[in-house]
Amino acid sequence: MEQVKLYDTTLRDGMGGRGMSLSVGEKLKVVRALDGLGVQTIEAGFPSSNPKEMELFEQLAGLELEQATIAAFGMTRRRDRSAADDEALAVLVGSFAPVVCLVGKSWGLHLEKVIKVSAEENLAMIADSIGFCRERGKRAVFDAEHFFDGYRDDVAYALECVRAAADAGAENVTLCDTNGGSLPGFVAEATAAVVEALGGATEVGIHTHDDAGCAVANSLAAVEAGARLVQGTVNGYGERCGNANLATILPALQLKLGFDVVAPERLEKLTSTSLYLDELCNMTPDPDQPYVGRNAFAHKAGMHAAGVEADASTFEHLDPAEVGNQRQILASELSGKATIRSQAEGAGLELDEAAATQAVEQLKQREHEGYHYEAAPASFELLLRREAGSYQPLFELESFKVLVEKRADGAVETEATIKVKVDGKRYVRVAEGNGPVNALDSALRGAIADRYPHLAEIELTNYKVRILDESHGTGAVTRVLLDSADGEREWGTIGVSENIIEASWEALVDSLEYAFQQ
Amino acid sequence: MEQVKLYDTTLRDGMGGRGMSLSVGEKLKVVRALDGLGVQTIEAGFPSSNPKEMELFEQLAGLELEQATIAAFGMTRRRDRSAADDEALAVLVGSFAPVVCLVGKSWGLHLEKVIKVSAEENLAMIADSIGFCRERGKRAVFDAEHFFDGYRDDVAYALECVRAAADAGAENVTLCDTNGGSLPGFVAEATAAVVEALGGATEVGIHTHDDAGCAVANSLAAVEAGARLVQGTVNGYGERCGNANLATILPALQLKLGFDVVAPERLEKLTSTSLYLDELCNMTPDPDQPYVGRNAFAHKAGMHAAGVEADASTFEHLDPAEVGNQRQILASELSGKATIRSQAEGAGLELDEAAATQAVEQLKQREHEGYHYEAAPASFELLLRREAGSYQPLFELESFKVLVEKRADGAVETEATIKVKVDGKRYVRVAEGNGPVNALDSALRGAIADRYPHLAEIELTNYKVRILDESHGTGAVTRVLLDSADGEREWGTIGVSENIIEASWEALVDSLEYAFQQ
Repeated sequence: MEQVKLYDTTLRDGMGGRGMSLSVGEKLKVVRALDGLGVQTIEAGFPSSNPKEMELFEQLAGLELEQATIAAFGMTRRRDRSAADDEALAVLVGSFAPVVCLVGKSWGLHLEKVIKVSAEENLAMIADSIGFCRERGKRAVFDAEHFFDGYRDDVAYALECVRAAADAGAENVTLCDTNGGSLPGFVAEATAAVVEALGGATEVGIHTHDDAGCAVANSLAAVEAGARLVQGTVNGYGERCGNANLATILPALQLKLGFDVVAPERLEKLTSTSLYLDELCNMTPDPDQPYVGRNAFAHKAGMHAAGVEADASTFEHLDPAEVGNQRQILASELSGKATIRSQAEGAGLELDEAAATQAVEQLKQREHEGYHYEAAPASFELLLRREAGSYQPLFELESFKVLVEKRADGAVETEATIKVKVDGKRYVRVAEGNGPVNALDSALRGAIADRYPHLAEIELTNYKVRILDESHGTGAVTRVLLDSADGEREWGTIGVSENIIEASWEALVDSLEYAFQQ
Repeated sequence: MEQVKLYDTTLRDGMGGRGMSLSVGEKLKVVRALDGLGVQTIEAGFPSSNPKEMELFEQLAGLELEQATIAAFGMTRRRDRSAADDEALAVLVGSFAPVVCLVGKSWGLHLEKVIKVSAEENLAMIADSIGFCRERGKRAVFDAEHFFDGYRDDVAYALECVRAAADAGAENVTLCDTNGGSLPGFVAEATAAVVEALGGATEVGIHTHDDAGCAVANSLAAVEAGARLVQGTVNGYGERCGNANLATILPALQLKLGFDVVAPERLEKLTSTSLYLDELCNMTPDPDQPYVGRNAFAHKAGMHAAGVEADASTFEHLDPAEVGNQRQILASELSGKATIRSQAEGAGLELDEAAATQAVEQLKQREHEGYHYEAAPASFELLLRREAGSYQPLFELESFKVLVEKRADGAVETEATIKVKVDGKRYVRVAEGNGPVNALDSALRGAIADRYPHLAEIELTNYKVRILDESHGTGAVTRVLLDSADGEREWGTIGVSENIIEASWEALVDSLEYAFQQ
């Protein structure tokens, strides 16, 4: 099997994504996670004299990795000085990183409008800079910025640029679709031309952006045209519409196109690595993300579920275990008894025939009222537990009261009072909040926190409200979905009521109770 | 220019997306929005005897559209009866929809494991069902389910299936990548084979899913191989990883591949249509979505911004105005003033230079806080009126208080107390409600109804809640959108606050005040 290598640029190009911000410690964790997944080269950024970057490179120099190599990023020399006199290149070759990646121009429009150098001088800048890095013992990658726009504009000059880098000793020339607007057919054509022009002596890479929604397909098209290295970011972090998503490209290369990219046991870490990186970068995981998303192998009950049971390949494009994900059969009013019993089994519960029938009835009734258990598996498990007789309430509610007051001076005050019993002992607490549900959450936790110290670790991560049958205006039914996490697990709960406070309360109680079920 | 047509299946396949749920009224709004964008065929679902679907098809029958055609969806006949005896087909041909789309099998594995019919019987099911619909005067589309898996498995049989549909009179045969795992190269090859097999006599369509992150590229590859109709959903709604995103495919076909899809002025509605559909479906718009996302044309200040100033094509793959989006540069841009003055004029208001500057500042500040005036033009007009000095408050709020109490017996009671002044006279009222906002609405109306009898005609028709920055759990900012109507006009207002009650109050007051502005 032919090899294709991955080159992750989360710590450089990915940092242009809106809201991306990582400490040195977090960047090191990103590097370890990418190394564990099997990414061959990890671009760590520009080793400037900025103290934060200096610290990162110092720490990286001492990091023991399983297999990955660190690359440092920079630009070709400035037009008004030799490579040896360029301070930025000096910092690059002075860094510990064995690989340097230099970005340079290959499009006349940019030479003319942006950096204002002649076509000839640009070729010299590329050759000199790559040559200088090679002389100082570095392995060199040349990132041909705007290559596809350049190729569209002037094939011969674009090829001259990459040839200049190859001739100067670059081990890899990566073609960048910097503006992200190219489509796969054109990417394949231009890549094939470069592979031919370089005669196989220099490895060709591909670097795409998702502005046309084709970053993944463009990367695959380039590989099919002869590229053997793919630059991108796991989860597609990056500015505008993002960089090429390596979490989508890796399984396609390995499981669909038959290339050798990472060891199969590393590929099984794909889903957990993707989630972990989202957590490090403080991004909400995309539930619909190919291969690794929570919904990627979710099947509605009914024909799909039955088909999957008969032969998974009827409704699945690959085995979710190969990428470390899991099949999910979504409960809905269409589910039959068999689905429900198998779900109960999955949660370690035993449902007898009568209890299963009863659970199906409950499910139908509740979905009719507006519950939507697909989005709230934890509430569904609590429903099953109630039917199986293994449900343990956290507390007994006596009453709660929520008061929202807008005063004459415009200030808004919110407080919640709660009265509950745990093991016969009564707890009464009041709490303020920035909204009614927040106040209620605080009051409840205040009341029972001593009895359940684990509560402190449970965080509400997501709160969604949907008004059902909206045509009734403010008198319609409200559905609340709540996501929670405790550092180890994530779970979703639901509440439905005409009254938004009551609906939120229900989802909140389910969330906390789920965490304590055994 | 050759034509390619769009076929939107949001109301059928898109409804499989997690959390998708639309009322009949919302579905009609989706249809109108897609029609306005220029989508040629809109699949509305299965016209069953279910009361909700019946109502939808009744309403659709009376809807005047600018250009779109409605399609009704169903399956090929059951194996144990003739097409004429199949109840589901009878409902289909009995519907008003001029186009019917029938889904059928083309993969041996499914015949064997899922529906258990012979290869021959399946061909008869296809031919009979299409023929029956044609006899009854319908235009027919055949959706070849799992076509690409079938083609991979047995080229000859897969082609026989589509030929059976074409020979029976289908005007279009659409190849479905139902499991979503195919890659563009293979999709192109298989599509070309079908185009050749049908000899150009029958139009070929493509229907893809995003399980390999290639739904868009697969659709484009099929069109380049001869397909002339693309099925998908605007914004990519759909189960698992979603259907092909028509909002990404449309501009690629028209602006990059040179096909004639919709009129250029319709294409300019792409961004606003995408946002509007997300609002209707209560989905959070993806800020990184190609072409239409908030970040799609965002440039960081510095070299990119300077390059864009010199020549936009240096850093933009197309002009954002062509898809109704806007460039965003982090420098202060004054372009807003002219737009705002013309909007004020539209509402019969005069804004002088200073007031217009002030309004632009207000708008920026408030959109930054989470307001979204596109969805609430009435609140925006009130903002302009305040700046123009022609705003008339309905009343002066002294204070309000909302109390929600869940008693020991489980009953929930909600009441709101309000204290307001109108023309110096003080009114104090209390009202109960089925939720806090309903109670507040009743109390306010009770307090001022005598002074404003027209209030009785104003109905709140729609109430939507969206949590912004959902990662803060119940402490996040809440955005409320309220639609109102008085029998003559409809208008939308907005409120934003950490506190859902305060946000609702703001939208409610705007709603009532807007109705009384002169």
